[in-house]
Amino acid sequence: MDRTLAEDVIKNIGKEILIEGWLHKKRLLGGLNFINIRDRTGLTQIVVEQKDEVEKLRGLQIGTILKVIGTVKDEPRAPGGAEIHDPKLEVVVPVTEEPPVEIDKPLSHEPENLDTLFEHRAIGLRNLQETKIFKIRSQLLRYIREFLYKNDFTEINTPKLQADAAEGGAEVFKLDYFGQEATLAQSPQLYKQIMVGVFERVFEIAPAFRAELSATTRHVSEVTMLDVEMGFIEGPDDVLNLVQDLVYDILTRLYKDYAEDLKSLNAPELKLTAEFPRYSMAEIHNLYGKANKKDMSQEIDLTPDEERWICEYAKKQDGCEAVFATGLPVSKMKFYHMKGEDETALSADLLFRGIEISTVPVREHRYQHLTDQMKTVGIDPNSPGFAPYVSAFKHGLPPHGGFGFGIDRLTEKTIGLANVKEAILFPRDINRLTP
Amino acid sequence: MDRTLAEDVIKNIGKEILIEGWLHKKRLLGGLNFINIRDRTGLTQIVVEQKDEVEKLRGLQIGTILKVIGTVKDEPRAPGGAEIHDPKLEVVVPVTEEPPVEIDKPLSHEPENLDTLFEHRAIGLRNLQETKIFKIRSQLLRYIREFLYKNDFTEINTPKLQADAAEGGAEVFKLDYFGQEATLAQSPQLYKQIMVGVFERVFEIAPAFRAELSATTRHVSEVTMLDVEMGFIEGPDDVLNLVQDLVYDILTRLYKDYAEDLKSLNAPELKLTAEFPRYSMAEIHNLYGKANKKDMSQEIDLTPDEERWICEYAKKQDGCEAVFATGLPVSKMKFYHMKGEDETALSADLLFRGIEISTVPVREHRYQHLTDQMKTVGIDPNSPGFAPYVSAFKHGLPPHGGFGFGIDRLTEKTIGLANVKEAILFPRDINRLTP
Repeated sequence: MDRTLAEDVIKNIGKEILIEGWLHKKRLLGGLNFINIRDRTGLTQIVVEQKDEVEKLRGLQIGTILKVIGTVKDEPRAPGGAEIHDPKLEVVVPVTEEPPVEIDKPLSHEPENLDTLFEHRAIGLRNLQETKIFKIRSQLLRYIREFLYKNDFTEINTPKLQADAAEGGAEVFKLDYFGQEATLAQSPQLYKQIMVGVFERVFEIAPAFRAELSATTRHVSEVTMLDVEMGFIEGPDDVLNLVQDLVYDILTRLYKDYAEDLKSLNAPELKLTAEFPRYSMAEIHNLYGKANKKDMSQEIDLTPDEERWICEYAKKQDGCEAVFATGLPVSKMKFYHMKGEDETALSADLLFRGIEISTVPVREHRYQHLTDQMKTVGIDPNSPGFAPYVSAFKHGLPPHGGFGFGIDRLTEKTIGLANVKEAILFPRDINRLTP
Repeated sequence: MDRTLAEDVIKNIGKEILIEGWLHKKRLLGGLNFINIRDRTGLTQIVVEQKDEVEKLRGLQIGTILKVIGTVKDEPRAPGGAEIHDPKLEVVVPVTEEPPVEIDKPLSHEPENLDTLFEHRAIGLRNLQETKIFKIRSQLLRYIREFLYKNDFTEINTPKLQADAAEGGAEVFKLDYFGQEATLAQSPQLYKQIMVGVFERVFEIAPAFRAELSATTRHVSEVTMLDVEMGFIEGPDDVLNLVQDLVYDILTRLYKDYAEDLKSLNAPELKLTAEFPRYSMAEIHNLYGKANKKDMSQEIDLTPDEERWICEYAKKQDGCEAVFATGLPVSKMKFYHMKGEDETALSADLLFRGIEISTVPVREHRYQHLTDQMKTVGIDPNSPGFAPYVSAFKHGLPPHGGFGFGIDRLTEKTIGLANVKEAILFPRDINRLTP
């Protein structure tokens, strides 16, 4: 007999079917005995009537793998609207030890319980609420790729073992590479720009590594990054429109297709307009200052409180909880960014639900300007790690821009989790290298 | 005026259009002056008639970024079947240095020229033949994911920074992780098995790292791996059928959609049947021994020559150049593989065009058997790196199996390249950490 999945049980009223899965819940109350079986599509309720079938379940714990053949009956109160009667049970894999964490009730995500959550991750992920988080994450990845394919982007795989650290700084993992020092990629920045010279439009979804010494709700040492780069832009608006259309497309799809899961995870309602409001940093300083009776005129950058505030403001004012902050200070620029004419960077931050989820800059594509900017920050354009990069500019790169964002953080903010680690299957931080 | 892409020029006969791209070829012959412009969709030929337009091109090299406005005329001999007349040229980014490698003629992939190929990779990838390789690679990734989505697989992202080396052995990169020793993942093996307990069917496409001391055509230190794992299998055939259906689906799609590109890359014709022939190792020893008048009865494993031979044999005999070699020796088993009853491993090798592209085993899902097999190879099931893994078995994993294969090697064999590095944008080996 072919296996029927939980989601298809309701289509088989009156028929005998085969269910396979994990024992998820067991209630042997004497009079009324029932169990729930979990498979990849959900739960099936089974009423166990016969005494010798009940006996088979004695001593078996949650996680036991069962095959069940029985007849489907309509039952509106059961998960999926139906249940199985007259079952014959077969124990495929017996489990005799209780699970270390609760499988059937939501697990605590309170800060003081996170260590326990991650310690028992291998089992805790079987909890239905946890599973939903990672089903949503996997769908986000799928929607992102579909959007980018539709817009003619080519997927690339760039090396994570590199000679030089593209972003510089201390937060780089180093390793011995056959007697030479190698670094683990913090981002595919230089490679994706080189690849604009080949495919014009490229993207990569891959791990990136940061030796973050901070232990906060925002820091992990391994992230999954989306990186996108696009050539032949007319100006900064082309890049802002790209990330705006991407974020709008994937989130509205997700909130439509996964409405029920998002609701059961207490995700906030989504408020997005097809065009995200754009405020300059000066405007934000001004609006925030007035509203909060503070003088922000001396601030060089946006404060974290301003980031939260402007998202709330735009949500009320514009009906959109994603906002671009433009006119960022030149001091925030990387050497590969382009400077605007008015002493601000040709770059914007995309803020969503209170925090920055991406910086969206135009790149400096002019060879001479780029190498000058490299020298200013102390990078030798002719060093082995950088020479191939600058050669792509010497031999012609068009005006281009791009962005990257963490899939982890996007998942976190989409669902409304409190800590980025809750959106990672097996998070890595300063204190955690297992499981 | 909106930009027209090279592939759409033919649709605009008689109209004035705007073309943007790289100067790809320049022929200033006095009487007849023409240039080719490259964009992400191909080449456009432009006839430059007016003297002052010709003058704009003096001194400019391949790679120069141009905007061209002109009128489309039918011209069967031009790329795409049309060309631009009466152009007005605008130089967006001038390039004054000749490219270090040929852009318009195929680059040499002879072993002695590979170092030059990789040294100038940033520019060499703009060569149309190189671009095709990576367009095909990106499509393979897309087709693989589409097949797996259709079959209900969930995408996962597992950590590349790990405490213990899952596969053991010396070929592991090690690094300092905040004072602790970490290893770079050789594969997501243990994590994908844990995730069977959550999603039943999972996959990941991600980098994997091997400190390979060998310098051969098959060895690189960073690969892009597809990893797949499937629960609730009835036996080894379910896993063989899965990888067979996947490979059949993606390769027949590719050969249909990219026939022209594959032909221009001299890719061999594809010979596949929907069911791949299956031969046991004993049968292969026997067939090969008879054909080559050799006694193979003492061989424990397949020899490389047998791998090549059986693929040729099956191509002629069965009309299929993908073959499963079953009944592999127990000595080749990993601790997480399942032993068959007849002292062979419940595992098969998938051979394609002469080499093994994947090993396709059933896993040992029984907690007691697994921990016994771990102890036999000297692994402590209770060590911090392994305890979370075995706990997934203690709390119930169904019969499962899976496989992994290198996207690099699959691309190499699909196109018929001679060295796996030719299928990698920026390959890493014992001698190469840049570009």
